[in-house]
Amino acid sequence: MNIMPASPGCLAGIRVLDLTQFEAGTSCTEALAWMGADIAKVENPKGGEAGRTGFGDAYYFMMYNANKRSITVNLKSDRGLALVKEMVKKADIFAENFAPGAVERLGLGYDVVSAINPAIIYAQVKGFGDGSPYEKGLAFDPIAQAAGGAMSITGERDGRPIKPGPTIGDTGTGMLLAFSIVSALFDRTRSGKGRRLQVAMQDSVMHYSRGMFITQARTGAAAPRRRPSDNPPGGIYPCKPGGPNDYVYLLTSRANPEHWPRLLKLIGREDLISDKRYETPDARLQHEGDVDEIVSNWTRQHTKHEAMAQLSAVGVPVGAVLDSMELTNEPSFRERGILQTMKHGERTMTMPTWPVRFDGVPTEVRPAPLLGQHTSEVLGDWLGLDADAVAGLRRDGIV
Amino acid sequence: MNIMPASPGCLAGIRVLDLTQFEAGTSCTEALAWMGADIAKVENPKGGEAGRTGFGDAYYFMMYNANKRSITVNLKSDRGLALVKEMVKKADIFAENFAPGAVERLGLGYDVVSAINPAIIYAQVKGFGDGSPYEKGLAFDPIAQAAGGAMSITGERDGRPIKPGPTIGDTGTGMLLAFSIVSALFDRTRSGKGRRLQVAMQDSVMHYSRGMFITQARTGAAAPRRRPSDNPPGGIYPCKPGGPNDYVYLLTSRANPEHWPRLLKLIGREDLISDKRYETPDARLQHEGDVDEIVSNWTRQHTKHEAMAQLSAVGVPVGAVLDSMELTNEPSFRERGILQTMKHGERTMTMPTWPVRFDGVPTEVRPAPLLGQHTSEVLGDWLGLDADAVAGLRRDGIV
Repeated sequence: MNIMPASPGCLAGIRVLDLTQFEAGTSCTEALAWMGADIAKVENPKGGEAGRTGFGDAYYFMMYNANKRSITVNLKSDRGLALVKEMVKKADIFAENFAPGAVERLGLGYDVVSAINPAIIYAQVKGFGDGSPYEKGLAFDPIAQAAGGAMSITGERDGRPIKPGPTIGDTGTGMLLAFSIVSALFDRTRSGKGRRLQVAMQDSVMHYSRGMFITQARTGAAAPRRRPSDNPPGGIYPCKPGGPNDYVYLLTSRANPEHWPRLLKLIGREDLISDKRYETPDARLQHEGDVDEIVSNWTRQHTKHEAMAQLSAVGVPVGAVLDSMELTNEPSFRERGILQTMKHGERTMTMPTWPVRFDGVPTEVRPAPLLGQHTSEVLGDWLGLDADAVAGLRRDGIV
Repeated sequence: MNIMPASPGCLAGIRVLDLTQFEAGTSCTEALAWMGADIAKVENPKGGEAGRTGFGDAYYFMMYNANKRSITVNLKSDRGLALVKEMVKKADIFAENFAPGAVERLGLGYDVVSAINPAIIYAQVKGFGDGSPYEKGLAFDPIAQAAGGAMSITGERDGRPIKPGPTIGDTGTGMLLAFSIVSALFDRTRSGKGRRLQVAMQDSVMHYSRGMFITQARTGAAAPRRRPSDNPPGGIYPCKPGGPNDYVYLLTSRANPEHWPRLLKLIGREDLISDKRYETPDARLQHEGDVDEIVSNWTRQHTKHEAMAQLSAVGVPVGAVLDSMELTNEPSFRERGILQTMKHGERTMTMPTWPVRFDGVPTEVRPAPLLGQHTSEVLGDWLGLDADAVAGLRRDGIV
């Protein structure tokens, strides 16, 4: 059964003055857009924000700017800056993630903006926090993942550190800021107060990586890249036919002693159920290599899909390692509205929507805007400018 | 300058009936707690939630249950269940992440809870979405990371898939749900309506990994584990003295042609600045091995801290690979209030707080509760029960 996606509408009527670029900031305002907020993405008339033009095609921009409106304004002109300051008066939220110091140089620093609109929620992403030795440093997702601990805990047991593929430094940061913005917005319904929010990408990566501090508290040493399973079998096992992603991740839990015998029954090794070498978690830990071999001998004879279906059916926690194409081709994601296809000019891209369903309904993906697509519309809605006024601004190179 | 941490107070007065366990659910309600919500964590009197007891010590529980209150209730008893239903009447938010079907078997499914309190926001974490072939499957963080695509894009270029260390399946999911909850709460100030929110860990992992769909749109093929840099140098480089985490991640951007000559000047290789082999991004891509060697020859002679400081100072984006101990020992995290030390019974653990600062102030970490520490307090605050009434419940084994 296909479900028709829709906006949950939670933030309908909320106006966001969006000066974000690339991913950390744009993913934050995109989350607000998916909740129904009105995002006015302010872009420079010469090509738009850096992420729109920096990667040779539109896909990157499309991914992080769904459901927004685009308005071009020349912020280097006095009239352009004045126009945006008029928009500040009407905005509930201001968001930016320029390099350190840049928003102040533009003339839209916190002091200026909050003086114009004291009830505004002013939200900023930085690479490193104020007070960090690197507070002036440039950050991109992998830089934050290195400096925030994520790489130190990712990799093979004796290999070098590896960058996690998910963009924890970028989208991860954007999610923490989006939650904080909406919390401040809720509070403002009672207090009327604006707030200043700042988050550093390095600190955000530490948040998602904080399991490392648990390990460190236990052992007194830095968390390693990959611990031995505390309850073998547990980890990644090779499957048929041996392609780069033909693996399953399976685990057995100390909290549930049934997982191991369930697994043995499934793979036809009931003979090992009361074998002393494998009977307890500690015994299996002593024979971890053997245990992995017993499991691999079975997984190698099955595809990851077969292995996942069969292990899952007997109640062993398991996941096939799925790649982007396999996820795209799995029909249930489209049926459930979790994957949707965006059109943007001539291009289309299949992408995930907001994953939380509201009352069973997935969130609708609407196209990322073309550059300046909504300049007239936004200036009309926000400031009441008519077509002639906008035409004048356009003629003078202001928008 | 040390800053005194405090709660931003955004959700003060909001009551959360918290039936979460392990990490995906608990990290969600912990985020609400950090914003000042009153979290009543309902635990079974025999040992508490699974994450409190399942790992041999308290550190795991401490990490994900800061700033909450704990109340024990025997949900298997009729009077215990009735007590929790009384709490449903007073709650703004209900949260759970039991295995599929378990909350319904407890008698606290959506239909029951929303009938008692139609304005409640009912929030659930599942492993796989309703309608997925694996909707009944068990999920833990690494299972979701496998099935949600994260492992397929993490690892060495020709190596096997690697599990990212950060808990994207758990804390990552919790953050998306927390944002959705607060969005629904904001909307409720206007509509008065409750909502039913559901998120699957597999779908959440796809959200953080969605960069893979950009690559796929470009190439028509599944996103690979590690792409060559599109603008060498870019990646992880070895540093002195060669320990497991002695690396820096540095990158040069196509959008900024100055990064490469800045780097060459710093490392004393001005001679290469107009060398045709390295002058353009495309030329460097053709000589990627040489370029990496030029950079490594310099990084190997410096510690990662020296390399980061020097590269950062000349405006090249860089991050040292820092591990949990190095982050703990870097004083600015404590001075900025980003790392704080929690006391819990006899134990202490240094851990990150909520990374977003509100008006320059970091969020205060208060101790995760001992089992049932706040039973009397919560029953007094929420239901007006006096000490005698609570003593009676305790005598009868209900709380």
